[in-house]
Amino acid sequence: MKKTIAVLQGDGVGKEVTAGAVNVLKVIADRFDHEFHFEYGLIGGEAIDQQGVPLPDETITLCKNSDAILLGAVGGEKWNSIPRHLRPEQGLLKIRKELDVYANLRPVTVQGALADSSPLKREYVEGVDCMIVRELTGGLYFGRPSERVERDGEEAVVDTLFYKRSEIERILRSAFEMAQKRNGRVTSVDKANVLESSRLWREVAEEVAKDYEDVKLEHMLVDAAAMQLIRNPKHFDVLVTENLFGDILSDEASMLAGSLGMLPSASLSSDGASIYEPVHGSAPDIAGQNKANPIAAILSAAMLLRHSFDLHQEADKIEDAVESVLAQGYRTSDIADGEESVSTDKMVEVIIEAIQAP
Amino acid sequence: MKKTIAVLQGDGVGKEVTAGAVNVLKVIADRFDHEFHFEYGLIGGEAIDQQGVPLPDETITLCKNSDAILLGAVGGEKWNSIPRHLRPEQGLLKIRKELDVYANLRPVTVQGALADSSPLKREYVEGVDCMIVRELTGGLYFGRPSERVERDGEEAVVDTLFYKRSEIERILRSAFEMAQKRNGRVTSVDKANVLESSRLWREVAEEVAKDYEDVKLEHMLVDAAAMQLIRNPKHFDVLVTENLFGDILSDEASMLAGSLGMLPSASLSSDGASIYEPVHGSAPDIAGQNKANPIAAILSAAMLLRHSFDLHQEADKIEDAVESVLAQGYRTSDIADGEESVSTDKMVEVIIEAIQAP
Ligand SMILES: CC(C)[C@H](C(=O)O)[C@@H](O)C(=O)O
Ligand SMILES: CC(C)[C@H](C(=O)O)[C@@H](O)C(=O)O
Repeated sequence: MKKTIAVLQGDGVGKEVTAGAVNVLKVIADRFDHEFHFEYGLIGGEAIDQQGVPLPDETITLCKNSDAILLGAVGGEKWNSIPRHLRPEQGLLKIRKELDVYANLRPVTVQGALADSSPLKREYVEGVDCMIVRELTGGLYFGRPSERVERDGEEAVVDTLFYKRSEIERILRSAFEMAQKRNGRVTSVDKANVLESSRLWREVAEEVAKDYEDVKLEHMLVDAAAMQLIRNPKHFDVLVTENLFGDILSDEASMLAGSLGMLPSASLSSDGASIYEPVHGSAPDIAGQNKANPIAAILSAAMLLRHSFDLHQEADKIEDAVESVLAQGYRTSDIADGEESVSTDKMVEVIIEAIQAP
Repeated sequence: MKKTIAVLQGDGVGKEVTAGAVNVLKVIADRFDHEFHFEYGLIGGEAIDQQGVPLPDETITLCKNSDAILLGAVGGEKWNSIPRHLRPEQGLLKIRKELDVYANLRPVTVQGALADSSPLKREYVEGVDCMIVRELTGGLYFGRPSERVERDGEEAVVDTLFYKRSEIERILRSAFEMAQKRNGRVTSVDKANVLESSRLWREVAEEVAKDYEDVKLEHMLVDAAAMQLIRNPKHFDVLVTENLFGDILSDEASMLAGSLGMLPSASLSSDGASIYEPVHGSAPDIAGQNKANPIAAILSAAMLLRHSFDLHQEADKIEDAVESVLAQGYRTSDIADGEESVSTDKMVEVIIEAIQAP
């Protein structure tokens, strides 16, 4: 297979961890006889420094001409005082919209070997295997108006939660299809006792469910879901929800795993290239120190192979390698729990060795 | 002191637990020489059954003529299939708006004796003492439009997040005042990297902070807060946020305590009567079985004495009594962790004994 992968390393540890993931992909290409071309583009703070904007047009073009996108992380203190619309995270929001990556998948699994590094007790998190499907291109993030207004003679402000039925339908279909390949259960999270958008969401979920008779649908209110993720995280198979609820709940759920350094994500496009990135941020405090955990980026590369290229064997290979090095006791400092830890490079190296092992 | 307290028992266990709280208040009145008059009103499912609406006008009048309101819980399966605008929770939303109870206070404390019943490890939750201040009468809950529309030839839907500057200012002031009486720290939670309303919120927070030089203000994004509540809940002193974020985060935070059965709340009005209620719902599955934990309702009564009547000694008395019976090992079934448990009535009885002890 011959593919072009755009690599947007971004800022801080984004550089180090994507470098590791690219090395892993090269080894996979070698071993399974594929040809992956890596093309590098600018995003975030580095793009601001070099070109004055967080997402240059050439990066958009590069992404549109690629088969998939591997992203690091963006942002850092340095760019926090520039005007809002030029900040690193605006690059992120813009590329999501440009590429129409409407389905953000965030698997939360707790590796047995790491179950003790969670703030939750082992019996609550061991065996958690949940897929959060977050709508990524609608809702309060992009609805208009979003502006200051005057009301009753004083300053006021309005944001808009907007969805078209088709936008709700396609994300729900993604969730149901995901559930078919997993354990056949979808929890649709909304606030239907308050929001009209949630009531439409619930209606559409009921309709879509008719096309997936092998999948069981349940509805849950967002406040109840925020509790259930802690009280009984094993309850969930696929959790699907709108953009802002998904932002909050997926970050909450990420804590089950003990470290953000373990968690990959995919943002799937309707037809073009999809984006794969670790859940963690640019972590400026440890950037450039060869300390960052590359596993989230490497598992994101595995998701890329699986979801964009349908290379399941190759993806499995990476995931198995990660599991085996963890079982052997290799830990970066974020998951070392006071024990001895290895560098970013060393972790990449042992994962590559595990992939190459006969 | 002579006061009238409206009691809205509501549905399910709401009845049992408010009955317990009223008994405790009677004992306090006796011991400290106050006169409390209790006037009962209908709300929720029972109001629907008897009068066809979840919040009859006479209940509103009763509340407006009272000095404070003690509420149980509303809702249940039975009323889930009636038209939305007549459902029990609409009674709740309406009374909040009618009485303008804009400041919802939800203290989350983890009693040492119960630190092991949390899903989180003891070292994460022991000593947690956080006050969540949720804006309760604005935001997406009440903004208009909230309706179906047509867009690009298809069905669409819109909800509106709306705040006036004065609404933001008064809730922030409540938070700062709270912090002055506590540990002097306010965490203001928003989504300022995406929402215009959050940017105004942040501006107002900075301005208000100038009037409280003894209080330290920090800003935190809502997704980061959802993580921090689990990773390091002891980080927080006062957490203040808008209505929907507060709904989600306060329910998440409630899980730190192990059981909802322990958590009280207050919804403070700008000038009229305030509402005090347990955080838990009507729990129809255990209603009428003399099993519900009355502590949340009893601690809500303590908050009533403290915040509406300025009776701090009396409130302390109740809180100390609760702590002492827990230390003695009394547990209702929700917090018994498999050990022997006592009934609702017995728990109320031992708390009253502790109050009456010399
Ligand atoms: C940086 C921010 C705009 C972004 C979001 O809210 O979507 C981030 O929190 C995420 O979840 O990817
Ligand atoms: C019942 C519902 C409308 C209510 C809310 O969302 O405010 C409840 O969840 C709460 O937190 O009191």
